[in-house]
Amino acid sequence: MTTHGNAGTIKVQYYTFAEPPKELKLESGQSLGPITLAYETYGELNNEKNNAILIGHALSGDAHAAGLREGAGVKELGWWDSMIGPGKAFDTTKYFVICSNVIGGCKGSTGPSSINPKTGRPYAIDFPLITISDMVNAQRHLIDHLGIDKLLCVVGGSMGGMQALQWVASYPERVRSAIPIATALKHSPQQIAFDEVGRQAVMADPEWREGNYYGLGQPEKGLAVARMIGHITYMSDQSMEEKFSRRLKEKNYSFRFKTDFEVEGYLRYKGDGFVRRFDANSYLYITKALDYFDLSGGITRHPGRPIDTKFLVIAFKSDWLYPSYQAQEIVKQLKIRHADASYCEIKSTYGHDAFLLEAEEQTHLISHFLKKVYKDKEGR
Amino acid sequence: MTTHGNAGTIKVQYYTFAEPPKELKLESGQSLGPITLAYETYGELNNEKNNAILIGHALSGDAHAAGLREGAGVKELGWWDSMIGPGKAFDTTKYFVICSNVIGGCKGSTGPSSINPKTGRPYAIDFPLITISDMVNAQRHLIDHLGIDKLLCVVGGSMGGMQALQWVASYPERVRSAIPIATALKHSPQQIAFDEVGRQAVMADPEWREGNYYGLGQPEKGLAVARMIGHITYMSDQSMEEKFSRRLKEKNYSFRFKTDFEVEGYLRYKGDGFVRRFDANSYLYITKALDYFDLSGGITRHPGRPIDTKFLVIAFKSDWLYPSYQAQEIVKQLKIRHADASYCEIKSTYGHDAFLLEAEEQTHLISHFLKKVYKDKEGR
Repeated sequence: MTTHGNAGTIKVQYYTFAEPPKELKLESGQSLGPITLAYETYGELNNEKNNAILIGHALSGDAHAAGLREGAGVKELGWWDSMIGPGKAFDTTKYFVICSNVIGGCKGSTGPSSINPKTGRPYAIDFPLITISDMVNAQRHLIDHLGIDKLLCVVGGSMGGMQALQWVASYPERVRSAIPIATALKHSPQQIAFDEVGRQAVMADPEWREGNYYGLGQPEKGLAVARMIGHITYMSDQSMEEKFSRRLKEKNYSFRFKTDFEVEGYLRYKGDGFVRRFDANSYLYITKALDYFDLSGGITRHPGRPIDTKFLVIAFKSDWLYPSYQAQEIVKQLKIRHADASYCEIKSTYGHDAFLLEAEEQTHLISHFLKKVYKDKEGR
Repeated sequence: MTTHGNAGTIKVQYYTFAEPPKELKLESGQSLGPITLAYETYGELNNEKNNAILIGHALSGDAHAAGLREGAGVKELGWWDSMIGPGKAFDTTKYFVICSNVIGGCKGSTGPSSINPKTGRPYAIDFPLITISDMVNAQRHLIDHLGIDKLLCVVGGSMGGMQALQWVASYPERVRSAIPIATALKHSPQQIAFDEVGRQAVMADPEWREGNYYGLGQPEKGLAVARMIGHITYMSDQSMEEKFSRRLKEKNYSFRFKTDFEVEGYLRYKGDGFVRRFDANSYLYITKALDYFDLSGGITRHPGRPIDTKFLVIAFKSDWLYPSYQAQEIVKQLKIRHADASYCEIKSTYGHDAFLLEAEEQTHLISHFLKKVYKDKEGR
């Protein structure tokens, strides 16, 4: 059913905010500018400009959500290629799909590794702390630039789901529907704790140099440890058992401090790969944005006004990082406001990674939901 | 009900193995010696020498299980003081209770920080890798030394529970009963993964110096990160929510990389405290012993022989580090061998820490179980 890369060969695009405003006022009170967003698009915007879907990426994601990246040496498929393309959940023969790298990131959008125009050197930790709301505000400028008044849908898993929720909170009149997946209204203390330990691992590495490591090499060991912690939380106990069990790399225990178990080798491989493709300071900034996120006080600041956005909320049974009770809290808050919200908990053993892996079940739910929203688009 | 420290003021004792054997043959094939074990005892051994209970400690525990440590500047209660003493679960007016620091540890027993007699310097990572079976073999020499032929009970939580299981596997004829608590027949890949990330955090710290840091200071930052990861796994999502929720240390977000949330402050406090009291190399050795442990192939090597040891297996509902399905696997294996095994899953929100905190429920179960075993001691 899934044809890899059928969204085509994709070229990343860049949008640097023109006036007004050159600077973005941040939630912290600080200003940031100039700002560039890296983004990709799939499919065509129709004449009515009412078929646009915005995808938010997760912690380590980027703008390359689908298709094959132009110019990449190896064929590099987008991180949600199984979901975006002709005939897929986000059918690019019908919809115009946009994905942009978040501010604070390191994949083409302005972040701590970008040049600070005031100093001519990378911002490092002089970069202001950003929030999910700031990320969404930046995206809004991109959506304006693309000439889209109202998005058909804002969707994403994990941090991408927070962006979907934040879009409704910040710009309810510009979002026809939202699909938050494997996400939460706020980080729990356990989620904060995992992020904090990851940050401590990075900052404990002397190669971090208080953030000023650019040109000198990354704090590789600390960042790899942070990523390894992350990977444990992305999988489930069961999926680890199915994938690795207690299989050894050699025939017997080494009785030394080396990689005995396959699961250890996998984590090291994932940790080492991550430090080659991700900036340590971006890791700090984005995890902090996740921890600061809190819409538990209300998805809208206007308690009198009903929520017009239609919702499809998806959770996965074995996801213990973003447990389904958190998705149910989203639905509960929406129902209190009489919003049109459906909830689906998918039976998967993949844990949090399920939002990237369970394409078939999600496709079924999402394509049906989008079809209805698209059809009803003039209905209200 | 619980009187703190009523096991009395306790003096730690040391037993250095006399011949035979001065050396212990290890599971790895290597030999280790001389070996000293630090241990404490509470209550009196009766004339029949049939009232002795051996307690196994967890990863970061020590021989000081109960009462007040003699000579300690501050009144230092044992780590299971709520369970050991007159009128408590392990009633020291009836039973003679023993707890020893494991080999590989850093609390008085021979471990990587001990002096290698061949070099006159600390072993560091020249210390041989030890297993739970090696720990138990060392304990057996102590039990011989104390003149005890058959233990009334071997008990412990987490790694202590593995020791209880290993005692039955290694010396079935010397164990009348066993109480494995919050433990498993083998580490799952998820448990191995958490341990491995902790080890990587320690070894990533340049202050680790390939293990040769003695006299130069600990790899404090790496060990603190390892301990912080541990603490997340010892608590439950719910107990973290109850203890911290999203409470801030200051009134507002700092918008800086500092401790915003109480849970972050708690983890740092716990990490910092740990590095002052625990040796980083011992952390590596003991976690490796945990990961190597695997009795899933059979608690006894003699498939024909029935298991005479009586079992009480305890798990806790919110313990996700050692989930109750692992305790049920122990029970299942015992039942297949027609062993007399009871299972109890205690409803607690404390997570893995529950074995240290849920004194009342455990006392009820254990005191009843021990009374019966002690009464029946001549029955079979």
